[in-house]
Amino acid sequence: MSADATVPAVRDVPIGLDAAGTRTETDSMGGIDVPADRYWGAQTQRSLVHFSIGEDLMPKAVYHAYGHVKKAAAVVNGRAGRLPAWKSELIQRVADEVIAGELDGSFPLHVWQTGSGTQSNMNTNEVISNRAIQLLGGQLGSKDPVHPNDDVNMGQSSNDTFPTAMHIAVVAAFTEQLAPAVRALRDTLDAKARAWRDVVKIGRTHLEDAVPLTVGQEWSGWTAQLDQALGRLEATLPGLHELAVGGTAVGTGLNAPPGFGEEVAAAIAEQTGHPFVTAPNKFAAQGGLDAVVAASAGLRALAVPLMKIANDVRWLASGPRCGIGELVLPANEPGSSIMPGKVNPTQCEAMVMVCLQVLGADACVAFAGTQGNFELNAMRPVIVSNVLHSARILGDACTTLREFCLEGVELDRARIEEHVGRSLMLVTALSPVIGYDKASAIAHRAADEGTTLREAALASGHVGAAEFDRVVDPRRMVGTP
Amino acid sequence: MSADATVPAVRDVPIGLDAAGTRTETDSMGGIDVPADRYWGAQTQRSLVHFSIGEDLMPKAVYHAYGHVKKAAAVVNGRAGRLPAWKSELIQRVADEVIAGELDGSFPLHVWQTGSGTQSNMNTNEVISNRAIQLLGGQLGSKDPVHPNDDVNMGQSSNDTFPTAMHIAVVAAFTEQLAPAVRALRDTLDAKARAWRDVVKIGRTHLEDAVPLTVGQEWSGWTAQLDQALGRLEATLPGLHELAVGGTAVGTGLNAPPGFGEEVAAAIAEQTGHPFVTAPNKFAAQGGLDAVVAASAGLRALAVPLMKIANDVRWLASGPRCGIGELVLPANEPGSSIMPGKVNPTQCEAMVMVCLQVLGADACVAFAGTQGNFELNAMRPVIVSNVLHSARILGDACTTLREFCLEGVELDRARIEEHVGRSLMLVTALSPVIGYDKASAIAHRAADEGTTLREAALASGHVGAAEFDRVVDPRRMVGTP
Amino acid sequence: MSADATVPAVRDVPIGLDAAGTRTETDSMGGIDVPADRYWGAQTQRSLVHFSIGEDLMPKAVYHAYGHVKKAAAVVNGRAGRLPAWKSELIQRVADEVIAGELDGSFPLHVWQTGSGTQSNMNTNEVISNRAIQLLGGQLGSKDPVHPNDDVNMGQSSNDTFPTAMHIAVVAAFTEQLAPAVRALRDTLDAKARAWRDVVKIGRTHLEDAVPLTVGQEWSGWTAQLDQALGRLEATLPGLHELAVGGTAVGTGLNAPPGFGEEVAAAIAEQTGHPFVTAPNKFAAQGGLDAVVAASAGLRALAVPLMKIANDVRWLASGPRCGIGELVLPANEPGSSIMPGKVNPTQCEAMVMVCLQVLGADACVAFAGTQGNFELNAMRPVIVSNVLHSARILGDACTTLREFCLEGVELDRARIEEHVGRSLMLVTALSPVIGYDKASAIAHRAADEGTTLREAALASGHVGAAEFDRVVDPRRMVGTP
Amino acid sequence: MSADATVPAVRDVPIGLDAAGTRTETDSMGGIDVPADRYWGAQTQRSLVHFSIGEDLMPKAVYHAYGHVKKAAAVVNGRAGRLPAWKSELIQRVADEVIAGELDGSFPLHVWQTGSGTQSNMNTNEVISNRAIQLLGGQLGSKDPVHPNDDVNMGQSSNDTFPTAMHIAVVAAFTEQLAPAVRALRDTLDAKARAWRDVVKIGRTHLEDAVPLTVGQEWSGWTAQLDQALGRLEATLPGLHELAVGGTAVGTGLNAPPGFGEEVAAAIAEQTGHPFVTAPNKFAAQGGLDAVVAASAGLRALAVPLMKIANDVRWLASGPRCGIGELVLPANEPGSSIMPGKVNPTQCEAMVMVCLQVLGADACVAFAGTQGNFELNAMRPVIVSNVLHSARILGDACTTLREFCLEGVELDRARIEEHVGRSLMLVTALSPVIGYDKASAIAHRAADEGTTLREAALASGHVGAAEFDRVVDPRRMVGTP
Repeated sequence: MSADATVPAVRDVPIGLDAAGTRTETDSMGGIDVPADRYWGAQTQRSLVHFSIGEDLMPKAVYHAYGHVKKAAAVVNGRAGRLPAWKSELIQRVADEVIAGELDGSFPLHVWQTGSGTQSNMNTNEVISNRAIQLLGGQLGSKDPVHPNDDVNMGQSSNDTFPTAMHIAVVAAFTEQLAPAVRALRDTLDAKARAWRDVVKIGRTHLEDAVPLTVGQEWSGWTAQLDQALGRLEATLPGLHELAVGGTAVGTGLNAPPGFGEEVAAAIAEQTGHPFVTAPNKFAAQGGLDAVVAASAGLRALAVPLMKIANDVRWLASGPRCGIGELVLPANEPGSSIMPGKVNPTQCEAMVMVCLQVLGADACVAFAGTQGNFELNAMRPVIVSNVLHSARILGDACTTLREFCLEGVELDRARIEEHVGRSLMLVTALSPVIGYDKASAIAHRAADEGTTLREAALASGHVGAAEFDRVVDPRRMVGTP
Repeated sequence: MSADATVPAVRDVPIGLDAAGTRTETDSMGGIDVPADRYWGAQTQRSLVHFSIGEDLMPKAVYHAYGHVKKAAAVVNGRAGRLPAWKSELIQRVADEVIAGELDGSFPLHVWQTGSGTQSNMNTNEVISNRAIQLLGGQLGSKDPVHPNDDVNMGQSSNDTFPTAMHIAVVAAFTEQLAPAVRALRDTLDAKARAWRDVVKIGRTHLEDAVPLTVGQEWSGWTAQLDQALGRLEATLPGLHELAVGGTAVGTGLNAPPGFGEEVAAAIAEQTGHPFVTAPNKFAAQGGLDAVVAASAGLRALAVPLMKIANDVRWLASGPRCGIGELVLPANEPGSSIMPGKVNPTQCEAMVMVCLQVLGADACVAFAGTQGNFELNAMRPVIVSNVLHSARILGDACTTLREFCLEGVELDRARIEEHVGRSLMLVTALSPVIGYDKASAIAHRAADEGTTLREAALASGHVGAAEFDRVVDPRRMVGTP
Repeated sequence: MSADATVPAVRDVPIGLDAAGTRTETDSMGGIDVPADRYWGAQTQRSLVHFSIGEDLMPKAVYHAYGHVKKAAAVVNGRAGRLPAWKSELIQRVADEVIAGELDGSFPLHVWQTGSGTQSNMNTNEVISNRAIQLLGGQLGSKDPVHPNDDVNMGQSSNDTFPTAMHIAVVAAFTEQLAPAVRALRDTLDAKARAWRDVVKIGRTHLEDAVPLTVGQEWSGWTAQLDQALGRLEATLPGLHELAVGGTAVGTGLNAPPGFGEEVAAAIAEQTGHPFVTAPNKFAAQGGLDAVVAASAGLRALAVPLMKIANDVRWLASGPRCGIGELVLPANEPGSSIMPGKVNPTQCEAMVMVCLQVLGADACVAFAGTQGNFELNAMRPVIVSNVLHSARILGDACTTLREFCLEGVELDRARIEEHVGRSLMLVTALSPVIGYDKASAIAHRAADEGTTLREAALASGHVGAAEFDRVVDPRRMVGTP
Repeated sequence: MSADATVPAVRDVPIGLDAAGTRTETDSMGGIDVPADRYWGAQTQRSLVHFSIGEDLMPKAVYHAYGHVKKAAAVVNGRAGRLPAWKSELIQRVADEVIAGELDGSFPLHVWQTGSGTQSNMNTNEVISNRAIQLLGGQLGSKDPVHPNDDVNMGQSSNDTFPTAMHIAVVAAFTEQLAPAVRALRDTLDAKARAWRDVVKIGRTHLEDAVPLTVGQEWSGWTAQLDQALGRLEATLPGLHELAVGGTAVGTGLNAPPGFGEEVAAAIAEQTGHPFVTAPNKFAAQGGLDAVVAASAGLRALAVPLMKIANDVRWLASGPRCGIGELVLPANEPGSSIMPGKVNPTQCEAMVMVCLQVLGADACVAFAGTQGNFELNAMRPVIVSNVLHSARILGDACTTLREFCLEGVELDRARIEEHVGRSLMLVTALSPVIGYDKASAIAHRAADEGTTLREAALASGHVGAAEFDRVVDPRRMVGTP
């Protein structure tokens, strides 16, 4: 390790390596050639060779979160004098580049790698080491004077920092991307619910005509479902705010000083503005990934009503002439390559597919959550990639559904009125007056004879015209919209 | 073991133990009290004590299948002189009682037990032993002269016989219960398809009006889906016909004579009428349960189209006045406790829920299939109970859907004709004549102006009345129904 | 409806109908024969005929919960004078019999029925009606003077009461059965964690030897996982405390008086001791079942760590001679029908299978949760049966795992010490002293040469004997246990 | 449409548009600006705007397959004179560029789009149209003289061609990528099985010591599982060989000439070398996607044993000193950022995670398969993207697991022998000689007293030394390896 006495000069070099060919990087397995224009080191390169599986890369958000971990550790290690001040500051500076995404091109690893995420941790350590060395004018790959393990990873293990980065990344995705998108959608639903508060329409249960409600009531139900789902999503945050860092290799905190976990969590909280704290039990935090499995359930809690809403909207818009046809969706694009003039509920379909993907991912995440052993759940990459992916596509689909479909929805009021007028289920209002059995006979009679409910009711003799008109008034049947 | 010289007399005692209180049964753990009126022994009793989890019992079909295994083993062991003839015959006789379900009350164990199914195997061995001893006038629990392990289980282990019984039970469920029920449903769909071959209706894609087809064509699609699904179900049978018996404890066949697996499989084939053979690799057959996981996929292959069909039927029947309303379902029961006269597509809903259960069970089975270790997949009970359950409810739901819904479906021909007449998508037929772009403009014009397609087409000037009527003829647009 | 003037006498008749043959019950479809010794009416009987699918019956817990709904409605309707006092009291009395399970034999319906649960609601209404009529000395099936719809179902619909009963039943299952069983298991884990706080053992990550921790730390991790999972389960209760009753057919509350939902919820809260309230948006509460889907996620939150714990325990007990062998499980039963003396981790296997079932059920429930349409999610029976089933088997499996496995677990201390002594990963403690790279070389050397870590370390020259012994002390490596 | 008389000259222009800014493209919605250096048209551009959801793009393999469809349609339409020869040939030429991947950059659309895949079909039509127009020296966006709908899409709809492309793409992925990778892995397993045919090792059931088998037998089990899984994968091909093309919009074949489906399928078969045929029932082929759901089950049939194998390998390699330690895996990379010298079973972990992903995707695909309505299953993009993704990662993971792990696996023979020598379960061989009960007592005695099996057996007096040594010979207990 480099001496404390001399503080090396840090130059202001833009990101980028102007070199061709390869350089040799080393680790405990020996040397390996790395593209000379890349920052990563030996372990990253080995992973690239050994884990060329599909095209799924570890989400960049994980590295951005890792930047926070490395920065916070450098802060804490520097403050305690375990790292010289200049080295702590240098690591922090490079970590800021990682956080900002400026080094994204230096993180090429696949999702399908070691189950602990060690390779992505080492990728981060190596890149920060080499970038720091570059800023010092040193020799890339020398690990001197900023060592990927001894300095950048000081007091840390992949086993505690990877789940820490997972939590940070998921919290960011939930609060900064997903929840705002859902909230905007919810607000659009709410605005429609208010605008159409008094439009009486026929209700449907079992797909069959039922008693009336207002369009606003129907939309208020969707709004309420999203409100509750947002609540469920947000209820997963406290578990995610608990960070494993400080547990090191197996949860005991070996090689980390006392209080390290608490201090790093506090630094991360300050850096991110989220109330992160140290996990109360590190063995649980590293042997399991239960908070992230719960986060996935939070995503599912959104997907379930979103799929219902998207389905309701497309069914209510079905037709236009041979379906329900109560809603008119914006025509964003030609719907068919063969049927001219066709308009389809494509935003709803995209949302339904996204929800199906989220449900499948959630099943995967839950099962992966069970597959830990002893001091490590080694299914981390598959879990974090699915959760971040689901959050992303759910959020984006909320935005497009809102922007390109729901904001522009119109009512076909004539059709809505026609349906209310036609339905036999308004007979329900007669039930408290003449009893269920007689009301039922009237409805069956109207159905069998193809008459209106009114005709059948009057023909039954159980109710007079005035009473019928007073009681069977759709507007009075919807309660307080 | 009892001598060969003396052949004990077998008495003709009906099933049942006329005794009160308890008797002591023993195993390697020592003695344990068992209800005196039950046939089971110590290991069954211990399992009852230790695995009182929920109310799910190991399906009786597993024991019936186990009866075939025990019988076949007795046949083969007797033939080879490893069992004296009288003992072989006696075991066969009691096994026949097991097969026939006459001893069902002697199999009380839960699904949630040892993962190998050993406790259910021992239950079978103990019951056969004690019932045989009863028939010989011996002392229950003495294991003499018919020992549960040495005689009834001769040449066998739970590890090879339990998956054998699973295969036998699943083959029986598929071929004798499920497939006939699906086939009957398919025949009903086919009959309707033929009956309504020429009834032109509007097609729907994306839930939106499309070009016409006939009702018979629509129903023929469902029929074809079921035909294909039946083929997929039946394609799982050859894998199930391969039996693990002969592998004993770990697949090597230790303590089973050479050829035992082949001979027992042949005997089971003869007993059951199904072409069972010995599994070519016993390590695969005992370490994995892949053939049963595939069988579950066969069930799912049915559930997927059945759910689609049930959904199509209930949507086509939706309304009756504010939905699609092209089908009229039989009114089997009042649909609502509050809305008089309501009729709902309840058979379709039951089928949809059954399909959802089958899909959930299939996910469980697949996960369980991955959880084997080394020479045993110890997730057998959860797998076999789900597969047999799914087969049962799918088959029964096919029967009730057919009998109480599809056989009695009627068309609302007026509504069907009204829909065809109204749709704008008949414009598609003009496309080859005037090109997609002009046809599209006509459809949009009709939609915007609320006119018929004919009016908009003539107004466009791109087509004359005669040509329009010749080309845009729904009857000519459905191809060869 | 019967007059208010005369208050009929209520006799004290024990439950049971002493009649043979059948009686005719009626509904809007007409008359149907019902076994004369049963309380149910026409709609129940029709359902029995039409929905004979498998052997899965609607859980009795749903009816017990429905008893609370009917009782509370009677209280509220009586208080307001909508029901005469005697009738209100009589319905309450019979509802108490339903709640107590005394009428369980009167609820024969299958899970696979109408998706709204109407048939089970009507079953309850019919049974209460007929039992009340019996107590009055009236004529069964007459619906007079206690009508199943007009009186027992007054102000209610299946659409609002069935999800209400679902919520009540799930809350009861969670709080009265499941949570106590989990808590007892957690306490057992915690007691072991404390007892073995200082027993140093080797840690394992990626299944590979890692740095040490104590047995108590390992068990504390499991305890913490269960604590957190219990928290997640309990976090689902507030959503379940919101009841749909008051929404009636489509959420508008048609035919229910103002405030009905609030009052009935309050009455149910008083009856059950759980803080039930009326759902703030009835359209959400009836069109979706999101609170129950979330409850299922709460079950899964338990299953995920329970499966991990059960797996850890059985792996740590693996062997006894050719595996890890650090734990010794109680030998509850012979483990093999062919291998004498074999003892297997059967309680762990049962728990793993239960968890797999819960995961499969959860996937089913989530998907069913998406399948609502408009004012009703008609997938209720499949959802409630799975959730109640999962709760039941999870709770029971916690109890048997605790009682028959974990309470009796012993340590093989010799084996544990042998493992700690042997591991090369203690080298990690040297890392802060000599750096990661040199420490790594030492570990590789010991592995290659088959020596102890100490031998390799001293041979490397990087560390002296005294320092090695001071630094590489397992007891000092476990932090504060 | 352009006249037949003049055959325009086709120039030899390399792929690429040398233009800056935008050009206006049109469709039935009007005009829209498109980047001038891109081939796509108005509908592609609209989709880009409206469906910016996540980063998942429709797999390029779908477009390559679509190239085959467009080429085959051009062949058939040209042959029949519906397209002039020059136009048919020109479309074929451009389709060849699509097939070869040379136009991959022209297909930017997301997975999450219209559920029919219409936008990807139109993307293909537009690109072929504009590329053809470029080759003719015409004006991009003019649709003249090669119209995207009237010419490139002639006789087709998205509704029939998209599932056709799905089938073609999946068949290619299965046969050309996945199956060869699995087969190579299987061959490696088989070679090891043969090499280690005679190495006796202890068997394990329930994770507990059992009777011996050979290493070769254990590996033969894995080989056999993969053989069977490959069979299951290949059994899904005939269903995939049936193509929907010819059904056009709803399955009736409107606007396609008689025999079109048969002829196009034949042309595709010729182009691809796979035995494609026309689907016998187009309504089933377009309303459902059952063949692709079954293909997903084929993928799962691989994932289930692959996960078991990967788990077995990593457990057998666990340790190295405190686990089972019978296998020694290649050390490809440093295993830990904190524990020097650690080597982990990372390839196995990657495979396990891939299998979990495949299982989750399969659940998603099955659910999506149920969500068709009427004449269309509008969940196509989510289904095809998951199936192709699973095939890709499964195949790649087979390759890396083989190359970087299994080919280099070594045995720790000393450890293997030590385990065999130690185990008590060899007592099983005594069972046929002295009976199960006495054998069991011997095993328990050895366990309790910590002696060898031999010592306990001789001490029991039930067997002499010579007989013990003759019978309890691991080498004789493994049958015919």
